[in-house]
Amino acid sequence: MLQISQRGIEMPASPIRKLVPFAETAKKNGTTVYHLNIGQPDIETPKQCLDAVKHYDIKVLEYSHSAGNESYRNKLVSYYAKNKIDITANDIIITTGGSEAILFGFMTCLNPGDEVIIPEPFYANYNGFAIEANVVVKPIASSIESGFALPPIEEFEKAITPKTKAIMVCNPNNPTGYLYSSAEMKTLEEIVLKHNLFLFADEAYREFCYEGIHTSAMHLKGAEQHVILMDTISKRYSACGGRIGAFITKNKEVLNTAMKFAQARLSPPSYAQILGEAAVDLPDDYFNTTKAEYRLRRDTLIKRLNAMDGVFCPNPGGAFYAMAKLPIDDCDKFCQWLLESFSHNGATVMLAPGTGFYSTAGKGLNEVRLAYVLNVESIQKAMDCLEAALKQYPGRK
Amino acid sequence: MLQISQRGIEMPASPIRKLVPFAETAKKNGTTVYHLNIGQPDIETPKQCLDAVKHYDIKVLEYSHSAGNESYRNKLVSYYAKNKIDITANDIIITTGGSEAILFGFMTCLNPGDEVIIPEPFYANYNGFAIEANVVVKPIASSIESGFALPPIEEFEKAITPKTKAIMVCNPNNPTGYLYSSAEMKTLEEIVLKHNLFLFADEAYREFCYEGIHTSAMHLKGAEQHVILMDTISKRYSACGGRIGAFITKNKEVLNTAMKFAQARLSPPSYAQILGEAAVDLPDDYFNTTKAEYRLRRDTLIKRLNAMDGVFCPNPGGAFYAMAKLPIDDCDKFCQWLLESFSHNGATVMLAPGTGFYSTAGKGLNEVRLAYVLNVESIQKAMDCLEAALKQYPGRK
Repeated sequence: MLQISQRGIEMPASPIRKLVPFAETAKKNGTTVYHLNIGQPDIETPKQCLDAVKHYDIKVLEYSHSAGNESYRNKLVSYYAKNKIDITANDIIITTGGSEAILFGFMTCLNPGDEVIIPEPFYANYNGFAIEANVVVKPIASSIESGFALPPIEEFEKAITPKTKAIMVCNPNNPTGYLYSSAEMKTLEEIVLKHNLFLFADEAYREFCYEGIHTSAMHLKGAEQHVILMDTISKRYSACGGRIGAFITKNKEVLNTAMKFAQARLSPPSYAQILGEAAVDLPDDYFNTTKAEYRLRRDTLIKRLNAMDGVFCPNPGGAFYAMAKLPIDDCDKFCQWLLESFSHNGATVMLAPGTGFYSTAGKGLNEVRLAYVLNVESIQKAMDCLEAALKQYPGRK
Repeated sequence: MLQISQRGIEMPASPIRKLVPFAETAKKNGTTVYHLNIGQPDIETPKQCLDAVKHYDIKVLEYSHSAGNESYRNKLVSYYAKNKIDITANDIIITTGGSEAILFGFMTCLNPGDEVIIPEPFYANYNGFAIEANVVVKPIASSIESGFALPPIEEFEKAITPKTKAIMVCNPNNPTGYLYSSAEMKTLEEIVLKHNLFLFADEAYREFCYEGIHTSAMHLKGAEQHVILMDTISKRYSACGGRIGAFITKNKEVLNTAMKFAQARLSPPSYAQILGEAAVDLPDDYFNTTKAEYRLRRDTLIKRLNAMDGVFCPNPGGAFYAMAKLPIDDCDKFCQWLLESFSHNGATVMLAPGTGFYSTAGKGLNEVRLAYVLNVESIQKAMDCLEAALKQYPGRK
């Protein structure tokens, strides 16, 4: 018998996508499914970005530079400058989505068996990239009661071993929506300096902050050599299918090493680099409109959730996610039940089970992640469904 | 001091791209550089493929399915059927270039420390993907004297250890241009069945066969569960920048496992999937024109090379590469010297040093790879340069 690899066995199936067949069946049976389960925004991709691709006149669709087009990297410098992130084009490698930036970070900085500390709940695919790179995720708990704030410094220090090489944060956070304060970012700076660790900063949702301002890991001037920024245009410009991200660091040894991984896969996708470059020219108020829309949705969602009996959802400061605690026995069962056995006025809601965002077994059992990527009217209807569902669900607690 | 990873240190820099700064300097100094060093075809991307992207009307650039658009996978079935490769849409995962298909193959089928046997010289980036996946490449020698034919079965059997999990071939071959015969493919089938190994088949150059017909690994009906086809549209349609490839296998366990890696990175690039889908509708004679052009170039190149004193180049049966033996001391020095210290009528030629395609140290020292991706006139001029250079090069042997 041919055997697949151990890492292939250990690789987690997407905790969100495993429910897809149940959603498909529900739809085939005529039920409307409100998708709050996935971070696919319905916000339109800016027309001038789509048009840039339409007007991209070439004879040959050539490989780009392995680090991405120089013109795009030069433009990005001005985007980051607006966010007080002071870098040059030579500090940037354009990647195939934020995903590849994360993988490059793990591959470049950690040996097999090395550890990266991540506050949980965290973006489920970090687990997958960790298994690909054969590195170990050490979760430390952030709690829904504290709104998923950064765990205290002692919790990090308890988790640090001789194998620890990095701390990773997503800010604003997916799945919790938590926006780390400037003081919390300072704490992280202190820890990585004291223990000589890398700081991986996934800032995919930088532009979506509703309470307070965003402190980038790149603002931590004392930790410049420690910080690797993992970025993407997917959420910023509603351009998920483009698969364009960025790996950014002032640490030249890290950048040069990541560049070897970039060379092996030749180049990032050409078309969406054109889109990304055009996006830098969007008017300064572009994000205001998008942010106002997301804020309205957030306010609608959080208000409805907390008005339901037995439900608690902290108010997320950023991104477009919220983690809510529900009065249920098991979120995986509940999310499947919503699709398989429930409907309300011909509709139901698809949510992401909380368990998928924890690597500690047994955690998140009564939590779900909601992505507010639908308009307010749809969110209202989805909340009607959830409210009715919680009254009927046999596993209610 | 922050330390990068051991695999980061071991990761090879691109053997081709390291000469780029010397080429840039030569150009700045006014020298024309004929690029025979890289597999970036000058053949135009078919207009109807580029137009499909221009006419792609969307409001939101969404994630595609992790396995790629269903409509594209359905179309691809008919492309493969024309090549007598009998698969369904469910046997295909669309990947980000052929590169990702190779990485998925290594990750899915091999544990860290497991071995893959590859006839050398081989495509240099296999080394990089092997390091990323922490697997060991065991080269077995194919020789320029035999035109880089498949090594005899005994050579494979000598290299097989309990750690061997797969054999990998590129057919037609990059860098040698060798086209494996049906008998050689049968030999591979025999070995993988006897020793229970996977057979990784990189068929990026399938459509470019000049002598005899292409035998795909997917034609080996007895080894269906063993074969993983790693494909790409980059060379087929001159669409390298699109970053669209495919991971194809009838082995469901392998496909389902690779799918978990595909889910972690969410989706392949959307735009170039549209291009790839349009390419399947190209007229049946599309490849005839391209092939005739490449054949003409090949004939020109090989004739010129073998007419030079001390040069030997076997006639490649496919792809658009040739490996030539030159009367030189060290190909890395020679290729650098061509860019740094030589010109002929204001021009020089950039070649890929043979050493980069061998993992056995010391091999390929007097070999270079030439990609015939320029028109006949440019190839003639490039050969004028090479001929003159070999007369002047201080390290001539």
